Amino acid sequence: MADNPLDLLMNPKSIAVAGASNNPGKMGTLQALSILKDGFPGKLYPLHAKETTVLGQKAYRSVYDLPETPDLAFLIVPSTVAVSLLEDFAKIGTKRAIIVSGGFREIGPEGKALEERLQEIAGTYGIRFLGPNCMGVINSEIRLSTVFKVAKKPGPLGMASQSGTYITQTADYLHEHGIRFSKAISCGNEADIDMVDALEYLGRDEQTRAIILYIEGIRNGKRFIETARRITQHKPVLAQYVGGSAAGARAGQSHTGAMAGPDALYEGIFRQAGIIRCSSIEELYMHGWTHATQPPLKGNRIAVITNSGGPGTAISDTADKNGLTLPRFSEKLQGKIRSLIAPHAASANPVDLTYHRDMRVLSVTIPEIIMQSKEVDGIVLHGSVGSGFMNLVYDHLGEFAAGIPKETLAKYMETDMGEAVTLPWKYEIPMTISSFFGRGDDNTSRYIDNEIPVFDSPEKAARAMASLLNYREIRGRKPAEKPDLPEVCPDAAEIIANAVAKGQKALDEHEAKMVLAAYGVPVTREEIAHSENNAVEIAEEIGYPVVVKACSAEIMHKTGRGLIALNIQCEEALRSAYTSVQIAAGGQIPILIQEMAPGNREFAAGMTRFPGFGPCVLFGLGGIYAEALNDITFRVAPLDNAEADRMMNDIRARALLTELRGMPAADRSALGSILQTIGNIAILHKEIAEIDLNPIILFGAEPIVADALFVLGA
Amino acid sequence: MADNPLDLLMNPKSIAVAGASNNPGKMGTLQALSILKDGFPGKLYPLHAKETTVLGQKAYRSVYDLPETPDLAFLIVPSTVAVSLLEDFAKIGTKRAIIVSGGFREIGPEGKALEERLQEIAGTYGIRFLGPNCMGVINSEIRLSTVFKVAKKPGPLGMASQSGTYITQTADYLHEHGIRFSKAISCGNEADIDMVDALEYLGRDEQTRAIILYIEGIRNGKRFIETARRITQHKPVLAQYVGGSAAGARAGQSHTGAMAGPDALYEGIFRQAGIIRCSSIEELYMHGWTHATQPPLKGNRIAVITNSGGPGTAISDTADKNGLTLPRFSEKLQGKIRSLIAPHAASANPVDLTYHRDMRVLSVTIPEIIMQSKEVDGIVLHGSVGSGFMNLVYDHLGEFAAGIPKETLAKYMETDMGEAVTLPWKYEIPMTISSFFGRGDDNTSRYIDNEIPVFDSPEKAARAMASLLNYREIRGRKPAEKPDLPEVCPDAAEIIANAVAKGQKALDEHEAKMVLAAYGVPVTREEIAHSENNAVEIAEEIGYPVVVKACSAEIMHKTGRGLIALNIQCEEALRSAYTSVQIAAGGQIPILIQEMAPGNREFAAGMTRFPGFGPCVLFGLGGIYAEALNDITFRVAPLDNAEADRMMNDIRARALLTELRGMPAADRSALGSILQTIGNIAILHKEIAEIDLNPIILFGAEPIVADALFVLGA
Repeated sequence: MADNPLDLLMNPKSIAVAGASNNPGKMGTLQALSILKDGFPGKLYPLHAKETTVLGQKAYRSVYDLPETPDLAFLIVPSTVAVSLLEDFAKIGTKRAIIVSGGFREIGPEGKALEERLQEIAGTYGIRFLGPNCMGVINSEIRLSTVFKVAKKPGPLGMASQSGTYITQTADYLHEHGIRFSKAISCGNEADIDMVDALEYLGRDEQTRAIILYIEGIRNGKRFIETARRITQHKPVLAQYVGGSAAGARAGQSHTGAMAGPDALYEGIFRQAGIIRCSSIEELYMHGWTHATQPPLKGNRIAVITNSGGPGTAISDTADKNGLTLPRFSEKLQGKIRSLIAPHAASANPVDLTYHRDMRVLSVTIPEIIMQSKEVDGIVLHGSVGSGFMNLVYDHLGEFAAGIPKETLAKYMETDMGEAVTLPWKYEIPMTISSFFGRGDDNTSRYIDNEIPVFDSPEKAARAMASLLNYREIRGRKPAEKPDLPEVCPDAAEIIANAVAKGQKALDEHEAKMVLAAYGVPVTREEIAHSENNAVEIAEEIGYPVVVKACSAEIMHKTGRGLIALNIQCEEALRSAYTSVQIAAGGQIPILIQEMAPGNREFAAGMTRFPGFGPCVLFGLGGIYAEALNDITFRVAPLDNAEADRMMNDIRARALLTELRGMPAADRSALGSILQTIGNIAILHKEIAEIDLNPIILFGAEPIVADALFVLGA
Repeated sequence: MADNPLDLLMNPKSIAVAGASNNPGKMGTLQALSILKDGFPGKLYPLHAKETTVLGQKAYRSVYDLPETPDLAFLIVPSTVAVSLLEDFAKIGTKRAIIVSGGFREIGPEGKALEERLQEIAGTYGIRFLGPNCMGVINSEIRLSTVFKVAKKPGPLGMASQSGTYITQTADYLHEHGIRFSKAISCGNEADIDMVDALEYLGRDEQTRAIILYIEGIRNGKRFIETARRITQHKPVLAQYVGGSAAGARAGQSHTGAMAGPDALYEGIFRQAGIIRCSSIEELYMHGWTHATQPPLKGNRIAVITNSGGPGTAISDTADKNGLTLPRFSEKLQGKIRSLIAPHAASANPVDLTYHRDMRVLSVTIPEIIMQSKEVDGIVLHGSVGSGFMNLVYDHLGEFAAGIPKETLAKYMETDMGEAVTLPWKYEIPMTISSFFGRGDDNTSRYIDNEIPVFDSPEKAARAMASLLNYREIRGRKPAEKPDLPEVCPDAAEIIANAVAKGQKALDEHEAKMVLAAYGVPVTREEIAHSENNAVEIAEEIGYPVVVKACSAEIMHKTGRGLIALNIQCEEALRSAYTSVQIAAGGQIPILIQEMAPGNREFAAGMTRFPGFGPCVLFGLGGIYAEALNDITFRVAPLDNAEADRMMNDIRARALLTELRGMPAADRSALGSILQTIGNIAILHKEIAEIDLNPIILFGAEPIVADALFVLGA
């Protein structure tokens, strides 16, 4: 496997810092102090124009005065200084840099020019850099941190972020929840090393057990998907993508183009890559932490253990809505549980102890009995509380507790919790905790500090368990196949070339269908009629019922304009439709006579090109519902069989593909093949900008393309 | 307005407690201590069989020994004892009781019998009670609390909960977020006083500025909706409903019945009542708190102020997805902002200060300038931090800070925040805060303790603002009208009575449509054909194209079984369809010849009866999409015009009702009238158990019912 530029950047033996001083109010100083004070075992060489020592370290006037070539240059200086320093470091042989400095691409043209200069220097000298406009990195393995505060103990969660805040300013939050990074990388402007490099690096890193990504936009889309796809087979990757909806849908001449807003595209890209999408930074951190600390979930059966009805119901309800089930426990298991709880407490699942003073029963004994039973794959537990309960009641006890020694009182609440936190890995069954008591409670703290995720609402604990279930499907995937591209079909190429030569903006429907047919896509039988009588002849040949349509490359969208007459059953009706379509078209126009595909399940497929990702294939509900419901999904072409099939599971209306009201289940393989083929056509024929196949009608089980639009001009 | 039983229960002058002792390990003792120690100014009379004093108060052997008739009896004793004590208290004239004791309906038949005995006693003596199996109440106004710990200061948020946990065990959580109750009521089994009484009480209570409800099931549905509807016009009500999805959809012979799962019903009921639904207890508390503390949002324009790109983007993205907009600020306003921030910082909205040390600019100056401009209706702010930042960096500073007095250092972080928390009410513009720093940060604490909601992720701060937007629409509603019920139509009554007399399980389609037509619902023109030739005659009379259908009360569902032939355009096709439908039906069967409504927008309406709520009306997508997408909404009948119209906004496919692809916008008034009418028919004709109208086709703008099923047997 090729070297990753972060291998060295994350593991330098020596670091030179420019921009630190003895003024503790400066950002550069604070960042240098982090390197110095967090336990980094290598050398630190401050550069400073005037001082002889900086932060107690000997300072150097210039890059050329350094006693050795540092592995890493760390720059927190004005942008123009950063440019010249990068070149100086490159000249003395330094191979990696982190450029914290802002004032580049993000401020406009003059900054962009400076950023391009950084790229030139990197190209010339082979120095690779992170940033500019980033916050640097954390490598907890060697206790290297360029950010203000990190956990004392190395952790299992890796992060790459396009916002520095999520690595620097959240330390308090992360500590509160017990979250500890393995490695964290702030990507900044990504002028050189980018999010994909960071992802690849974290994928290989053994310390990292799960990866979280904060994404505002990916430039190298194809490499991103390929890299993520490889990693997600063995390591969970979760991502938050924001920034898509404000930008809104892109302009496009096809419906596919119009629906291809960045949010929908990233949604599809994440699914294709096996990345679990999170809808908030809280989910990103907490679900990531759950994946990083808990054993994999091996099935969808969970137990809910609680001492309170409300949270138990909330967990069950949320679990149920997210694909988890609560099996009723066997009589044997219930018998064991019943021996431990009050007579009327619930033992079937959820287990509800109701008010129960012995926290060991709730926190250790019952979870262990359930894990031993193998009747579930995961546990969500609510209600374990220790000192927190005493804090609730202590104010009131006051004088009445006076006679009783404080220790005796505290004993009511004390639980031997040691084993509670060892259960998940002992039985390889994941566990999440819900508690309304924060770190002030000793049980909560014990869970948090021992890598058992604690959530402050029961629904969240259930959702984190459901996130583990998402990964179960991804983990089981076969590696993506590199599907063979078909040969370019000469007939199709000719149709397209002719249309381009004639200056057409699109293929007409009949041309589009001939291209599709040339690549094996099933289309309606049809023929262009040149007169009304000719239309009657064609209809008789095809057999009634038929469809009558205006056919012209000038008309991209026909619905609702009187340009289509469906389900024509006899000559009389045909003649009348022929005329009315001509009138609607406003004059002589070629008329397409087409077989009527008799099905009422309509889908749509399409293709649009997206910068960095290439041709993207759409699948969704068809007909007028496509737009009204926006029930669509995207993938980047080419698609293998499994990926094409997965697209069909993405839409909300997926039940339409199953056996339904006397109609057979759809031939998914044939439908998948259409999706693969339009991706391939887009790869083979760059002249095609966008494709709409809408509707694709299910004729019994078999899909048939009833209308098609190919927009030219890519 | 009638008395509410909680008026007295929440404001007793004297309370007798049974179940408290001098043992501080007992629940009853802990609850009595709360009454005693939290500042309740009334009398407390403990009952105890042996002790002469309990918790320092003179104890009484029996109810009959009490020195006065207490206003309230508070019972934390075994269930059988509770029953006999309730009767004793009733006999001496006590008018209210709280029964904490469990062991009633929730444990099975013997408990249910005891609970019925409680109801008998209440009926006989006029004593009203809360519970059993509840945790009691909080009235912060008179510092009465039966739960362990409450905020020191009275608050503005009222709660009624069907889980005691959410009032007793969340004190730590509530304190952490600064949430303070006005009144809180744990409803328990609701054997007498119920959730609706609690809601009504909180609606009238002046101290309560917003109400939150935790609901697992409502028994008196109609009264619940009427009560909530009245309150939500002037006070926000938020609710979490759980417990619906596990129970799953109910059985039903119509599609409407099959889709009427409790979760879908409660969703509709909440919308009808103007209640904002929350999806987790966190949302319930935090959004409730936002409504209780912030001025109303007067429009959907918000400003986002931040010092960091990531959270700013996340807030903007979440706002955008939830109906809020970020207007670009005027040049004038931007000019004022630019004078305060770094040259390349963003001023247009979001305002992004980037790294900026003067927190006053972020927290006070810029928010105030923006509020003064009147260019937005609300503000979401991220990044205000004080001592929290010092905590992040202090460990590293160590020796380097040694020379500098600590006060000087702290000064870097100190901000005069006093005005920050006064801004929302000064300008009547709501504000929510996002911060990754918890109560350990002094800015965060200042916001929390001064009724400015602080969220630990930027997305949550944006969602809370969007919740205020939801209420804006509700607040503007007109009071629900009591629609006039039509007279019973004798023709319709006769059709139904005949069918019932013949033992039909349903009306046949033609009968159903005659009933609909009798009440003015537009249905397809149609006639029963008694022979093939008769069918041809009818078709010629109606005019081609026509639909051919099997028509029998035995056949409830025709789709996909060859029992319908659509869009028949000529005699030949008609004769062939007539035969094929007869064959599919398996023998001689009446055949319905029907006009073909030429529209491809299909909706569905329906009715099912739901215990406690009466007839519920469904509106949704029609055809096969109804089930596949489950895109439906419910309301309780009868419906006024505004409510029927609102149903059309609920479905995801609502764009189908607008002008679309050359089709006109739907006649919403005609569609709404159909919804109102089927609700009225259900009220007038109790024999009808369920109704399906599917599809209702839009013929141009006009809805026409193309198929109808009336199931009998309510």
